[in-house]
Amino acid sequence: TLLDMMEDFHYADIAEIIHELNLDEATYIIKLLDSEKTSDILTELDEDIREQILGNLSAKEIAEEISELDTDDAADIIAELPDERVNEIIAQIDDKDHARHIVELLRYDEDSAGGLMAKELVKVNENWNVLTCVKEMRRQAENVTRVHSIYVVDNDDKLKGRLSLKDLLTTSTKAEISSVYIPKVDYVTVNDKGEDVARLMSKYDLEAVPVIDELGRLVGRITIDDIVDVIREEAEKDYQLAAGITQDVEADDGVWELTKARLPWLLIGMLGGLGAASIINGFQGAMGTYPELLIFVPLIQGTAGNMGVQSSAIVVQGLANDTIRGEMLHRLIKEFFLALTNGIAIAFVVLLISHFLFETSYLVSATIGIALVTVIIIAAIIGTFVPIFLDKKGIDPAVATGPFITTSNDVFGILIYFTIAKLILGF
Amino acid sequence: TLLDMMEDFHYADIAEIIHELNLDEATYIIKLLDSEKTSDILTELDEDIREQILGNLSAKEIAEEISELDTDDAADIIAELPDERVNEIIAQIDDKDHARHIVELLRYDEDSAGGLMAKELVKVNENWNVLTCVKEMRRQAENVTRVHSIYVVDNDDKLKGRLSLKDLLTTSTKAEISSVYIPKVDYVTVNDKGEDVARLMSKYDLEAVPVIDELGRLVGRITIDDIVDVIREEAEKDYQLAAGITQDVEADDGVWELTKARLPWLLIGMLGGLGAASIINGFQGAMGTYPELLIFVPLIQGTAGNMGVQSSAIVVQGLANDTIRGEMLHRLIKEFFLALTNGIAIAFVVLLISHFLFETSYLVSATIGIALVTVIIIAAIIGTFVPIFLDKKGIDPAVATGPFITTSNDVFGILIYFTIAKLILGF
Ligand SMILES: [Mg+2]
Ligand SMILES: [Mg+2]
Ligand SMILES: [Mg+2]
Ligand SMILES: [Mg+2]
Ligand SMILES: [Mg+2]
Ligand SMILES: [Mg+2]
Ligand SMILES: [Mg+2]
Ligand SMILES: [Mg+2]
Ligand SMILES: [Mg+2]
Ligand SMILES: [Mg+2]
Ligand SMILES: [Mg+2]
Ligand SMILES: [Mg+2]
Ligand SMILES: [Mg+2]
Repeated sequence: TLLDMMEDFHYADIAEIIHELNLDEATYIIKLLDSEKTSDILTELDEDIREQILGNLSAKEIAEEISELDTDDAADIIAELPDERVNEIIAQIDDKDHARHIVELLRYDEDSAGGLMAKELVKVNENWNVLTCVKEMRRQAENVTRVHSIYVVDNDDKLKGRLSLKDLLTTSTKAEISSVYIPKVDYVTVNDKGEDVARLMSKYDLEAVPVIDELGRLVGRITIDDIVDVIREEAEKDYQLAAGITQDVEADDGVWELTKARLPWLLIGMLGGLGAASIINGFQGAMGTYPELLIFVPLIQGTAGNMGVQSSAIVVQGLANDTIRGEMLHRLIKEFFLALTNGIAIAFVVLLISHFLFETSYLVSATIGIALVTVIIIAAIIGTFVPIFLDKKGIDPAVATGPFITTSNDVFGILIYFTIAKLILGF
Repeated sequence: TLLDMMEDFHYADIAEIIHELNLDEATYIIKLLDSEKTSDILTELDEDIREQILGNLSAKEIAEEISELDTDDAADIIAELPDERVNEIIAQIDDKDHARHIVELLRYDEDSAGGLMAKELVKVNENWNVLTCVKEMRRQAENVTRVHSIYVVDNDDKLKGRLSLKDLLTTSTKAEISSVYIPKVDYVTVNDKGEDVARLMSKYDLEAVPVIDELGRLVGRITIDDIVDVIREEAEKDYQLAAGITQDVEADDGVWELTKARLPWLLIGMLGGLGAASIINGFQGAMGTYPELLIFVPLIQGTAGNMGVQSSAIVVQGLANDTIRGEMLHRLIKEFFLALTNGIAIAFVVLLISHFLFETSYLVSATIGIALVTVIIIAAIIGTFVPIFLDKKGIDPAVATGPFITTSNDVFGILIYFTIAKLILGF
């Protein structure tokens, strides 16, 4: 039967199947299958689909699902529901410790270490002896899918170190934990940003990291599977921002969903285009006397855009990987030289082609070349400066590789081009 | 002393420090510190710096470093060296099993599961009893940093299933493994692509996955820390391709390095710009009779570029996440409708502004509007089609969000614009 078949499937696969079904079918499956499986399915669903399905379940039914989940996933699901529903559901959870832990996790920002951690972990007191420790550990491990490390705390619950399972098994049962544990342990603090946690765990190849609060007390643990999700989501967000898509759409979303994510950026591009139109219009003189200047507008615009995006992308990645070291001034000088040399190379080719193929006069060719170099340099400097500036202001620097900046670069480029032309040719 | 200080540092931190030093200093540190630590430092270094340092070491010294590493990291480092050097080093490795394993790993493509796996794993025969198994396991585990799972194989070394440590410890020592193991186990095949392994491990939240060869034999194991690196590198590559940077540069690289990565794409943009110039030049009639058409060139170009990049980015992400389902035709129709509705919205605004602000005639305004809608639709269709086409041809579809396609879109857009103008206005 379908039921038996589904029982054999992995929850992540059932979640994929559910994405292809309608709401009634999806709800039917969630009610039919055991909560042990359906709770995990729920965590894998897209937020909007999950919201709809949970709308069809009673507070008691949701509480049953939540009871099966680790505290981090439970808190994530509950956080999406309206406040009065949350209270109803929490009241229906039988395991009061579990309920208390979930409520505690709800107060952290979802992009912080606190928002990523689970309360499930194994910890022992430094004053216990190995025997007590093993007993306690066995009891605690029942609720923890993968133990990874055993954390050692003092009487105030402050994180002191960690213990390897191996050490524990090869030591006399009477030994005190304080004489066995490894006092060096990587940790993060509840308010650390998720991206920083990801960087730390990937740098040190950690599979789990303990989380401490402002007082140094051990309050949770973050596991690598959730960090893998953070890394993927971060990368998708950056990529979409660079492409001019407001985050969180997928290839399979509907036309209206996609329009909401895309139209705003297209409109920004349109405004830029209209800005460029009025700049060109403002140089009426040029349009009459030197119409050949106009045919190089796409070249100026395209080159400024490409250069600016390249500069920004390198800075955005440097910020993300924390490899931006040294002074701002030094970076700008390097980018200036790069733009200068590359700009001169490009301008030289363009100068030759414009003069010999498009038969522009020496003066007009020189104008185009000089304008090109200037535009390239300015695009590079703006491209370097803007992401650093955005980052300092707390805005995602990845915005700087998107249409907003490309468009500004286009407009600036054209303005500079005609201004230089006017200075040289004096129309 | 410096030595004692360094001994306390994590190898990943020392690697960061070495990136700031000159070659002599770096070589000094690698020779000074214990191979147990320096081998790990070497794996964390940038390829070019590692190459230089290894150039200063003898085959014997390199063999010492290699001996300390897991087979996957050892093979990665050796694979970068010239062939005769590889043979010299392999000959100097004392542990012949280790040497044989490394040589085996060298034959896999670096982006395949075989190129990602290590030979270090714990496996037991299904015909053993629990006692033999525990003994064997203890012996094998000495070479394995983290055990994760114990894999069960038959007499032909074929992967049959896995065993949890917990089960092993709670079963009678006389029981046969075949009656205890879990026959269901996720695995990958040596030739699977690294990206697919990453997708599987992240979907099923795996911390390690066994690798089998074409005959179903267990040949290695991939751990999540290396997959985290794959995910990060993939994301960086896509982002850089989208920004027009040939992969593998960092914010701290030199001007020449950066120029090599960036100039080719700038030149493609330049060629596109010159193409656009000759198209505009070809419509000499329009330049004389309808100079106002020229002021909207940046608008047409910018909008075509933005639309195309959006369409491509969504398809590229869909391909990467394997969420592109259904037919090509269906996707193109959806994109067509999206482009049509968004295009009409934008064209309507532009039409009003061009007519009332720029005082273009009704006919010219209509021309601009119709051209804009057409250009947007074609950019969207090309943007959707190209990444799917590239993917089928085995080229990274992320190229489709980079300057090559943006530039083509610019040129196409301008060509379509003037062609439509000529049809309507008949200059
Ligand atoms: Mg259920
Ligand atoms: Mg959370
Ligand atoms: Mg790592
Ligand atoms: Mg590593
Ligand atoms: Mg979790
Ligand atoms: Mg980011
Ligand atoms: Mg050494
Ligand atoms: Mg490899
Ligand atoms: Mg996952
Ligand atoms: Mg998960
Ligand atoms: Mg490894
Ligand atoms: Mg890719
Ligand atoms: Mg552009």
